[in-house]
Amino acid sequence: MTADGRVQIGIAGFGYWGPNLARNVAASPRAQLAWVCDLRPETLAAAESRYPDIRTTTRFEELLDDPSLDAVVIATAVSTHYELAAAALDAGKHVYVEKPMASSSTAARDLIRRAEQRSLVLLPGHTFLYSPPVLKIKELIDAGEVGDVYFISMSRVNLGLHQPDASVVWDLAPHDFSILRYWLGAGPSKVVAMARACVVPHTPDVSFIHARFDSGTIAHLEIAWLAPSKLRRTAIVGSKRMIVYDDTTSAEPVRIFDAGATLPEPDSFGEFQLSYRTGDILAPKIEATEPLSLAIADFCQAILEGTTPRSTPQTGLDVILTIEAVERSLAAGGAPARCFPAGSLEPVTSELRDRAAAG
Amino acid sequence: MTADGRVQIGIAGFGYWGPNLARNVAASPRAQLAWVCDLRPETLAAAESRYPDIRTTTRFEELLDDPSLDAVVIATAVSTHYELAAAALDAGKHVYVEKPMASSSTAARDLIRRAEQRSLVLLPGHTFLYSPPVLKIKELIDAGEVGDVYFISMSRVNLGLHQPDASVVWDLAPHDFSILRYWLGAGPSKVVAMARACVVPHTPDVSFIHARFDSGTIAHLEIAWLAPSKLRRTAIVGSKRMIVYDDTTSAEPVRIFDAGATLPEPDSFGEFQLSYRTGDILAPKIEATEPLSLAIADFCQAILEGTTPRSTPQTGLDVILTIEAVERSLAAGGAPARCFPAGSLEPVTSELRDRAAAG
Amino acid sequence: MTADGRVQIGIAGFGYWGPNLARNVAASPRAQLAWVCDLRPETLAAAESRYPDIRTTTRFEELLDDPSLDAVVIATAVSTHYELAAAALDAGKHVYVEKPMASSSTAARDLIRRAEQRSLVLLPGHTFLYSPPVLKIKELIDAGEVGDVYFISMSRVNLGLHQPDASVVWDLAPHDFSILRYWLGAGPSKVVAMARACVVPHTPDVSFIHARFDSGTIAHLEIAWLAPSKLRRTAIVGSKRMIVYDDTTSAEPVRIFDAGATLPEPDSFGEFQLSYRTGDILAPKIEATEPLSLAIADFCQAILEGTTPRSTPQTGLDVILTIEAVERSLAAGGAPARCFPAGSLEPVTSELRDRAAAG
Amino acid sequence: MTADGRVQIGIAGFGYWGPNLARNVAASPRAQLAWVCDLRPETLAAAESRYPDIRTTTRFEELLDDPSLDAVVIATAVSTHYELAAAALDAGKHVYVEKPMASSSTAARDLIRRAEQRSLVLLPGHTFLYSPPVLKIKELIDAGEVGDVYFISMSRVNLGLHQPDASVVWDLAPHDFSILRYWLGAGPSKVVAMARACVVPHTPDVSFIHARFDSGTIAHLEIAWLAPSKLRRTAIVGSKRMIVYDDTTSAEPVRIFDAGATLPEPDSFGEFQLSYRTGDILAPKIEATEPLSLAIADFCQAILEGTTPRSTPQTGLDVILTIEAVERSLAAGGAPARCFPAGSLEPVTSELRDRAAAG
Repeated sequence: MTADGRVQIGIAGFGYWGPNLARNVAASPRAQLAWVCDLRPETLAAAESRYPDIRTTTRFEELLDDPSLDAVVIATAVSTHYELAAAALDAGKHVYVEKPMASSSTAARDLIRRAEQRSLVLLPGHTFLYSPPVLKIKELIDAGEVGDVYFISMSRVNLGLHQPDASVVWDLAPHDFSILRYWLGAGPSKVVAMARACVVPHTPDVSFIHARFDSGTIAHLEIAWLAPSKLRRTAIVGSKRMIVYDDTTSAEPVRIFDAGATLPEPDSFGEFQLSYRTGDILAPKIEATEPLSLAIADFCQAILEGTTPRSTPQTGLDVILTIEAVERSLAAGGAPARCFPAGSLEPVTSELRDRAAAG
Repeated sequence: MTADGRVQIGIAGFGYWGPNLARNVAASPRAQLAWVCDLRPETLAAAESRYPDIRTTTRFEELLDDPSLDAVVIATAVSTHYELAAAALDAGKHVYVEKPMASSSTAARDLIRRAEQRSLVLLPGHTFLYSPPVLKIKELIDAGEVGDVYFISMSRVNLGLHQPDASVVWDLAPHDFSILRYWLGAGPSKVVAMARACVVPHTPDVSFIHARFDSGTIAHLEIAWLAPSKLRRTAIVGSKRMIVYDDTTSAEPVRIFDAGATLPEPDSFGEFQLSYRTGDILAPKIEATEPLSLAIADFCQAILEGTTPRSTPQTGLDVILTIEAVERSLAAGGAPARCFPAGSLEPVTSELRDRAAAG
Repeated sequence: MTADGRVQIGIAGFGYWGPNLARNVAASPRAQLAWVCDLRPETLAAAESRYPDIRTTTRFEELLDDPSLDAVVIATAVSTHYELAAAALDAGKHVYVEKPMASSSTAARDLIRRAEQRSLVLLPGHTFLYSPPVLKIKELIDAGEVGDVYFISMSRVNLGLHQPDASVVWDLAPHDFSILRYWLGAGPSKVVAMARACVVPHTPDVSFIHARFDSGTIAHLEIAWLAPSKLRRTAIVGSKRMIVYDDTTSAEPVRIFDAGATLPEPDSFGEFQLSYRTGDILAPKIEATEPLSLAIADFCQAILEGTTPRSTPQTGLDVILTIEAVERSLAAGGAPARCFPAGSLEPVTSELRDRAAAG
Repeated sequence: MTADGRVQIGIAGFGYWGPNLARNVAASPRAQLAWVCDLRPETLAAAESRYPDIRTTTRFEELLDDPSLDAVVIATAVSTHYELAAAALDAGKHVYVEKPMASSSTAARDLIRRAEQRSLVLLPGHTFLYSPPVLKIKELIDAGEVGDVYFISMSRVNLGLHQPDASVVWDLAPHDFSILRYWLGAGPSKVVAMARACVVPHTPDVSFIHARFDSGTIAHLEIAWLAPSKLRRTAIVGSKRMIVYDDTTSAEPVRIFDAGATLPEPDSFGEFQLSYRTGDILAPKIEATEPLSLAIADFCQAILEGTTPRSTPQTGLDVILTIEAVERSLAAGGAPARCFPAGSLEPVTSELRDRAAAG
């Protein structure tokens, strides 16, 4: 903690995403950027030139050994998330770890257990939970403006960037599954997936995924690193209203359609007199706040005030459980795969406690 | 046949689509609109006022009894397609029947057999096979401009029109499956589907469908009668080029992206040096010819010159076989369903001949 | 008048626009399409085949001689508007004449005088006054939703169609000037214009026009028969709201932006603290009614009930006076030209009466 | 000059635009960012924290007194451009000065004279001359791909930012006039303008401008600080092709339409058989290079190698002469105003030499 009560934060990984995290930590009134850790000396030099007051290192242990450091932000390759986060928690540091939180649900559960045991904040970096358009739609759904959510169709495609150590499913689907879970209050109960490794052998770069929720909502995800043009389009069709969320534009990211179809007297359907309704289209004003700054603020508040962050460890675990179900469906040639029950944190941790007690 | 060698055509069904067919028959230099048949007298009155020279009737048999009538166009409810088409073929009339050709593959095979026995033209009305943008893309694929077709993503959604006697799968998917079969030269070998009846009980109005082709191509279809705005967008991603086909605009329905990702030396991927390429985007001039006029011309040419129409009976059968596989997947809770082999017409008809011989 | 009290209408000119008028007259519950007149026999044959009950002729006098005919709709070349309309009024027929009402303000004033003398309806076909998006914007302006109308920018460009007997100014500018006059309650007091005859010598096919209104509003028109893509875009910037009206789309033709800039304390501007405001964007539901059907209904109502149609003779005259001012500006090398005062009908007709008395 | 031959550059003005210039100077391989000068100490602190190696000052004279400084970049308020640039040139520094180069043509001519006398580089910062889409269109025009340039229509509107010491004409029109001059090889010979001060009294925030070129090309500019949505759209209509340049998108900033109208036999126009042609639409690949980096490179090359920069002093002067003509047109109530002849630099400097000799 700094003398004026700000959280001292170190960042591990200063590659593609790390600099964005660093910039938001540095700009936060409740945080101080204290360390940057990266394996590449030239990257550290760049960080230093940008933030002359920080300390840099190629050894993550140096951060853990600094008693004044309160928290670490992990933005390294996915395969290293678990190891670094576990070490940081064991050293008593709060942890913000990029999505996906770990490479497996087992590892994610282990991180949750470690954080609980030491009462540390563990925040998986699902930044879309801090995106103003996503929040606006959550508000609309919770207020009943959308009605029953019939279905959701999501496209997240672009040309690039193939990841060296993950498929497009692990890279992009966590975004959509975290959004779906947030909007609908629960993850899917069942998924069905198809994928293809078009360019790099054994590394799927396009995947189509169906998801079914216990509420009856169905969803479709189209994710790809190959596409003629960037699409980040989500359509939400409800019984009362329909919404289009386009994340490629800041001008009108959310558009609300007062439209739908109703069956006036469902029991006398012999007549088949469906009524279609179209009305106004509204693009509500959406603040252009950077999601990452809200995420860092939430992280600091959780550390300083003991609040529960919006992106909980359970969110991170549920997303991984869903991804694992997608992988099982792919391995089974597209057969439906059940997702693990996405309950509250308690059952999971009691299970872990039991297991720990048994062990 | 008319004195000047034009095909005399009668139309059965003058509801939503029939008038479009009638207009194109009437405008064709190789056809004469001779009859309109519909169960509703007021509809017949409207047809007469539009085409004073035609004859009208509420009894389909009247058309069949007219020896000067060469062919019938069937645009009635799907459930009646088989009965009317079979009767027409038995009466020696050539048949143009709206898609889907019949309600089952058994019925479709039976129609094919009847047409073959009498050497009559049987043309299922897959009008997208006559759509200039679809033809342009077929040209590009066949010329190798697209390269290996990695995947195809299709959205065909709009608000309305719920059909009284069919699900959205039977209503809209035939369009996309006929297009896919035409472009790729074969139908899918496997499909996986999810659907929901949002408004009318037991009548799915939204469906997500995955399809896998023996060539390796995968495809995704999103079809719905509920949507915030009309989408008819198809993205084709190939190893050499990518194409976006937007059927809602006549301005630039086809856009060709000279873009892609290549793996320079696939065997030394340890280095992971993918190369992305983006280049010009071309919207080729596409003639705005009405597909239906080309379909009617193809029908007349087949009758008058004995040519094989682009939309063959086998096309119609294959599409129905694929739809039936979709239905099996839905019935099995989203499990993958194999489509029947989509071979040439011969095996099917020999099978039918064997069966007929056995019977 | 028909036995059931409908207005008997004859149409002169069945070329590009006439068939649309005929269709709307035929579909009107208060009118009967009785005659079509055109110089081309083959055009008359087409009209007859479409409307078997009408009478056709190449001689306009035949319509005038038919005592049962109540009104004529004139959709011929602009240069003939005056002669035909004058003859029809003299024969006691109500007149709907396509825009521009005549080729000069003198001729337009003469038509107004003739109509007044015989108490006949004279309706210039400014169809945009019957266009639902234009009406919606009129409502918003009148309700004060837009505030002070700062400026209006209008683009009406497309590739084609060059007119044989008129410049782009006489062809397209009447649309925009009729809309501006309707929205703002008065025509411009001053115009400045630039033009070029790019393709056909001496026939301008592109023109840029500035207009200034006594209210302080300024406007800009860009009209052209040459353009890479069709634009029919109008932006209205007011002190309270801004509106974009796009006439090329039926999906969201009117979009209302709750945006603006305000100067909190205008007298202490030394500080220069302008405040910008952006808010919701609303696309109100706009009925897709065909403007022409509303125009024909207005014409019939004026004849049958004596009401004043929305598109008054004064509208038609004012538009022509404005066009004449544009022509004067062009002739003067782009110098500003004052438009004639656009007052009520009275002064004009008294002037004409005086002149007639003097003559 | 640095030891390794790089140009030492100081920047005056670190407000809205200065930081962009600083970033590009700092990133240039041929320059070294040596000084930042600004009147606000807190701004200097921000610059220092960003560029730890630079020197900062609130006194411009300090830069001029540094003998190792080769050049200054002036990004202050327009009203100070002349004074600072003149002092810098007198101190023997090369000067890059933001557009407009000065507040009057007299001042601009004076700067040109000073630069010439000392053989210093004077580069007005017309960054659009370094914008890849603008360059691409210049190539197309010069290669004859567009044919005769019939007309150009330009919209540059947005909500904000009102300038404290200039009208929208001085703020935005220099962009468009510099582009027009570059494309067409000469500035306009005549302009006509209308404007309104909607929000801040006496400070026009919207202006419509017509321009006529000796070549016959006509142009229209619409510029505003008030607009419902950002538009930066330019349409170029030529006898052979048409181009749309949209500067708000990096995806397809330039689109080339193979479209037009031709008059097959112009001398027998009695028949009026215009032929319209529409063909492919091409969006050529445009590199996304930042214009400012190219401008700084051009500045350094001119200093180091004695080349003539693309944005010459004459460009800056011509743009100001055109703006002055616009102001004269506005002052004269919209009357056409002749622009000063936009010849080569020679006549102007000889005039200045004569005047200097006379003085």
